[in-house]
Amino acid sequence: MGRIHSMNLSKMKDVEIVGIVDMDVDRAKNLAQTLGVQPYTEFSSVIKSNKPDVAIITTSTQSHLPLIREAAENGIHVFVEKPMGIDSKENEEIVRAVERNRVKLQVGFQRLYDESFIKAKEALEGGEVGRPLLAELISRDPSPQPGIGTILYPGAIYDDMAIHDFATMLWMFGFRRMRLYASGSAFVFKEYKEAGDFDTSLVNVKYEDGPLVNIDVSRCSRYGYDIRAEILGENGMIRVENRTEYETLVFRGNQISHAPYEWFEVRFRDAYRREVEAFVNSVIRDERTFPDHVFAYNVGRVADAAKRSASIGEPVTVE
Amino acid sequence: MGRIHSMNLSKMKDVEIVGIVDMDVDRAKNLAQTLGVQPYTEFSSVIKSNKPDVAIITTSTQSHLPLIREAAENGIHVFVEKPMGIDSKENEEIVRAVERNRVKLQVGFQRLYDESFIKAKEALEGGEVGRPLLAELISRDPSPQPGIGTILYPGAIYDDMAIHDFATMLWMFGFRRMRLYASGSAFVFKEYKEAGDFDTSLVNVKYEDGPLVNIDVSRCSRYGYDIRAEILGENGMIRVENRTEYETLVFRGNQISHAPYEWFEVRFRDAYRREVEAFVNSVIRDERTFPDHVFAYNVGRVADAAKRSASIGEPVTVE
Amino acid sequence: MGRIHSMNLSKMKDVEIVGIVDMDVDRAKNLAQTLGVQPYTEFSSVIKSNKPDVAIITTSTQSHLPLIREAAENGIHVFVEKPMGIDSKENEEIVRAVERNRVKLQVGFQRLYDESFIKAKEALEGGEVGRPLLAELISRDPSPQPGIGTILYPGAIYDDMAIHDFATMLWMFGFRRMRLYASGSAFVFKEYKEAGDFDTSLVNVKYEDGPLVNIDVSRCSRYGYDIRAEILGENGMIRVENRTEYETLVFRGNQISHAPYEWFEVRFRDAYRREVEAFVNSVIRDERTFPDHVFAYNVGRVADAAKRSASIGEPVTVE
Amino acid sequence: MGRIHSMNLSKMKDVEIVGIVDMDVDRAKNLAQTLGVQPYTEFSSVIKSNKPDVAIITTSTQSHLPLIREAAENGIHVFVEKPMGIDSKENEEIVRAVERNRVKLQVGFQRLYDESFIKAKEALEGGEVGRPLLAELISRDPSPQPGIGTILYPGAIYDDMAIHDFATMLWMFGFRRMRLYASGSAFVFKEYKEAGDFDTSLVNVKYEDGPLVNIDVSRCSRYGYDIRAEILGENGMIRVENRTEYETLVFRGNQISHAPYEWFEVRFRDAYRREVEAFVNSVIRDERTFPDHVFAYNVGRVADAAKRSASIGEPVTVE
Repeated sequence: MGRIHSMNLSKMKDVEIVGIVDMDVDRAKNLAQTLGVQPYTEFSSVIKSNKPDVAIITTSTQSHLPLIREAAENGIHVFVEKPMGIDSKENEEIVRAVERNRVKLQVGFQRLYDESFIKAKEALEGGEVGRPLLAELISRDPSPQPGIGTILYPGAIYDDMAIHDFATMLWMFGFRRMRLYASGSAFVFKEYKEAGDFDTSLVNVKYEDGPLVNIDVSRCSRYGYDIRAEILGENGMIRVENRTEYETLVFRGNQISHAPYEWFEVRFRDAYRREVEAFVNSVIRDERTFPDHVFAYNVGRVADAAKRSASIGEPVTVE
Repeated sequence: MGRIHSMNLSKMKDVEIVGIVDMDVDRAKNLAQTLGVQPYTEFSSVIKSNKPDVAIITTSTQSHLPLIREAAENGIHVFVEKPMGIDSKENEEIVRAVERNRVKLQVGFQRLYDESFIKAKEALEGGEVGRPLLAELISRDPSPQPGIGTILYPGAIYDDMAIHDFATMLWMFGFRRMRLYASGSAFVFKEYKEAGDFDTSLVNVKYEDGPLVNIDVSRCSRYGYDIRAEILGENGMIRVENRTEYETLVFRGNQISHAPYEWFEVRFRDAYRREVEAFVNSVIRDERTFPDHVFAYNVGRVADAAKRSASIGEPVTVE
Repeated sequence: MGRIHSMNLSKMKDVEIVGIVDMDVDRAKNLAQTLGVQPYTEFSSVIKSNKPDVAIITTSTQSHLPLIREAAENGIHVFVEKPMGIDSKENEEIVRAVERNRVKLQVGFQRLYDESFIKAKEALEGGEVGRPLLAELISRDPSPQPGIGTILYPGAIYDDMAIHDFATMLWMFGFRRMRLYASGSAFVFKEYKEAGDFDTSLVNVKYEDGPLVNIDVSRCSRYGYDIRAEILGENGMIRVENRTEYETLVFRGNQISHAPYEWFEVRFRDAYRREVEAFVNSVIRDERTFPDHVFAYNVGRVADAAKRSASIGEPVTVE
Repeated sequence: MGRIHSMNLSKMKDVEIVGIVDMDVDRAKNLAQTLGVQPYTEFSSVIKSNKPDVAIITTSTQSHLPLIREAAENGIHVFVEKPMGIDSKENEEIVRAVERNRVKLQVGFQRLYDESFIKAKEALEGGEVGRPLLAELISRDPSPQPGIGTILYPGAIYDDMAIHDFATMLWMFGFRRMRLYASGSAFVFKEYKEAGDFDTSLVNVKYEDGPLVNIDVSRCSRYGYDIRAEILGENGMIRVENRTEYETLVFRGNQISHAPYEWFEVRFRDAYRREVEAFVNSVIRDERTFPDHVFAYNVGRVADAAKRSASIGEPVTVE
């Protein structure tokens, strides 16, 4: 994600990248060279040398809180990858640090900047299907090697994958009293099983006053990256379908070969660009960021509830 | 359903319809006349006069147990519409009556005779997608007038609608220890709300050893009858889509007008025919019926668990 | 087709089949036995013995004229498979024989009884897309063994296959002055090449006052039976798509496996039934048949023009 | 197109735009200002002042020959919008000017840089469907105001619209002896009728040794920009479908509302960028351009044949 965001930022005319920080020296040098900027291994060094306006944090979740705090205390606005902190307790500290220092924070829920999801929300808010009754949010990753780039722990799937669906849900239907029940299994990859994590899960959510939401996540999709949504309303249904990279089909016998479903870098290419543009513009124009730390705090509360529900095997109320 | 089944039976050469029973005299006469047979208002009369081999019971659920018992005690094989009895307690009595009298019983889970669902099961059993991990079963009815032809009570949606999904689930994945959590709401129709029933529900099922299953039912579909299924397996996905009555599309502006999704009489026309043919053949050849009273008893246990879970707001274990 | 039509007729209550005629004794006996009727090898014998009301003629095209004449002279109404006669000259004689003897004749253009095509025509006539400007009619057969059941001769593809598209075109847009240009090739099967026939052809038709029509026929489809139509109108487009036998898809990698496109017996099962029902009703109610000998005569004139155009390599005017 | 190409060029790091030429002073100034360069009203002035390496010509077709000649004589490489010249006679002069002066020329057939079309060609060349037998190439424009930005004359539709399909055809199947028959009408717009041009046309092409190709063009699409292709091969079919801007559907009643089919700026956004990148790279690396003046000359011969065929009402041989 560090590379994706820097490449996008490097093309924005109001942005000057002043440094790349990576504890891994070679990786820092490599990306810094591509961008023609200075590499650093310490966040504090780049702050001292450059007094940057903003920091884009794409490190592992464990380091988010200290880095955000350091940035905030230096008056630096922050864009941080999801999830914001490791749990709601950390998220609270982050919210406090951000508000105390009066900096801006935006979290990388890029799905909220995807045109298909935006159009779905517009259709919903435009009343095209009336009041929402039921939603299905589906996120399936194409069977990666488990544990690459992620720390595994019980319920990590909710912080890492389903977090996008939780964010989508709050964005679509708001945050208010809801009851949530999560169940999961590690069917395919023993690494997840050993860590007490899941590779597949269902989360059943009931907003007190509607709608009902089912979240369907799996890391085991052998037919490609599959990100869909479906909202049943009183008067119709809104559906977000997958997108293929091109529209060429080959028909042979009873089989149709199609272009791959776009994997995240392609599927959300525009969304990744738009979210950092939006962040930069919020900073320049001194406007509110979206989705901000308060939104991310609420998303984190839903993720925490999912982890808890999956662990105790009982529904949990979020309010 | 009485009319659908009799019309199908009337075209089978090994079948002679000997009488139509309906407490409503006019309705009995009407259908009897169409078929050129005798109308009755009492089940016992037709048994006495005709000593039929089989009875097709399509009355309201409340009357299933006494009618099945009467048929069984007279050595008459029974085809009964779903659900078999009103709950597992009644279902146990039905199973006993059927077994004690050594008659056959088949329950009208016609989805199990639908070619698309059969092909999905064949693909699953043929190993085309490997071990099943996750399934979505969707049943949405096109906004009827509530309460027509149905008695409303708390959780009736599970006995009346989701019962088809429960049957599909057991047929696909078997009956064994599972944990089930159901949540529902009466969003649109006050009749359901007043009766403590729902018009929309999600049921989250976790087989102890997999798969996870989400059941999505709603009586509020304004875009047509929507019966779908999706099974994510280790190596791919199987999907059952809706069927339209014809394949003509009209493109204007950004809209495509399509044929209606087939409503149940059309969508399952062949399945309704095939299930009674299968029943008649089971009786003629003295073979096992499918789905039989034991299968239906298990389906009923799942439905009871759903009703209980929705009522107490907690997950329930079925085993 | 003889078998398909007799099975459909045998289920109609106003119809009594009195005999099956086939020069091949065994074939005659075989079908006659299935239907419980008398087999014949001579058309005149069945006429003499039974004085039937109607004859269903499904023999090879060469025998249509003498059989229709014999039927007509005996006051027997005729349903004949397409094409009516081998060319317009024969068709004229058929028209005369039918009119002189005041019998009815219907030709087996079953596509005109297909629900999808009927809905397309209704949409067109209902003005849903305005005036038709351009149409694509596509008919592709799944690579059969060539010459089975067909006599091959130069341009046979127009009498045998494209005839359905010509009929559809006249039904949709009427019969009036048009200019037609046909080109074809025998790409795959040497049998067609040797006979001077084609396995693939395009026919370009321009009605003097619109629309333009492209007819695309091939006997070489390796992805299934493919019968489509597309009408571009001033205000939109109407499209008839293929139909699969069931709606089950399997997703693996970048491939989707689907049910076969229905081959003609399945794709047009209802249309075959409806066309003979319509014929029988026309006879019983003494109403006009559709499509009748005059319609078929016009279709034949278009087919003749296509044969001629393909043979001389120049456009031909039909009027 | 001038604006699209300059915006793309302005983002390429090896490219410096030295001037914008437009006879319309205000338009020249406007675009020049956006790009921060000098505006000109005379091509010769920008040549004299800047000695550019390449010229991008997007003026009306009538001016292509003199501008290309002037560029070529000054050793300037040329990217010119389609069609290259107004007819084959002009195209010959262009080819001579280009070859005599040893400059490079590329023509703006951007469809050949579209990923979907490239994948179709790769599938064809990779033998996925075997030998091509039949192709349908469809180009329908969303009902513009006629005559805006185009000079109307008899058969202009072939130079302006179908030229893309001719280019696609030669790219897919090569240039060799073929017989071509074109028919057209001006159904909707009287401006085309008055100019002797068409708003809708079919072109039937038969390569002597296969395949058959149907080209279907219309300026009257009320359901959006519709660019498709279909290639029937001996072993299957390749299809290029339309692309929508996003994947959000709204289901209400029997209607599905979808995103617009992408209009040319969006549909071919990447292709426009890639074609100028390819051109620039060809110049920098001194490699052959594609599609070059010889390719465009052949495309022009097909367009001339189409104009001639439509005008005389007879097929024309191209060789």
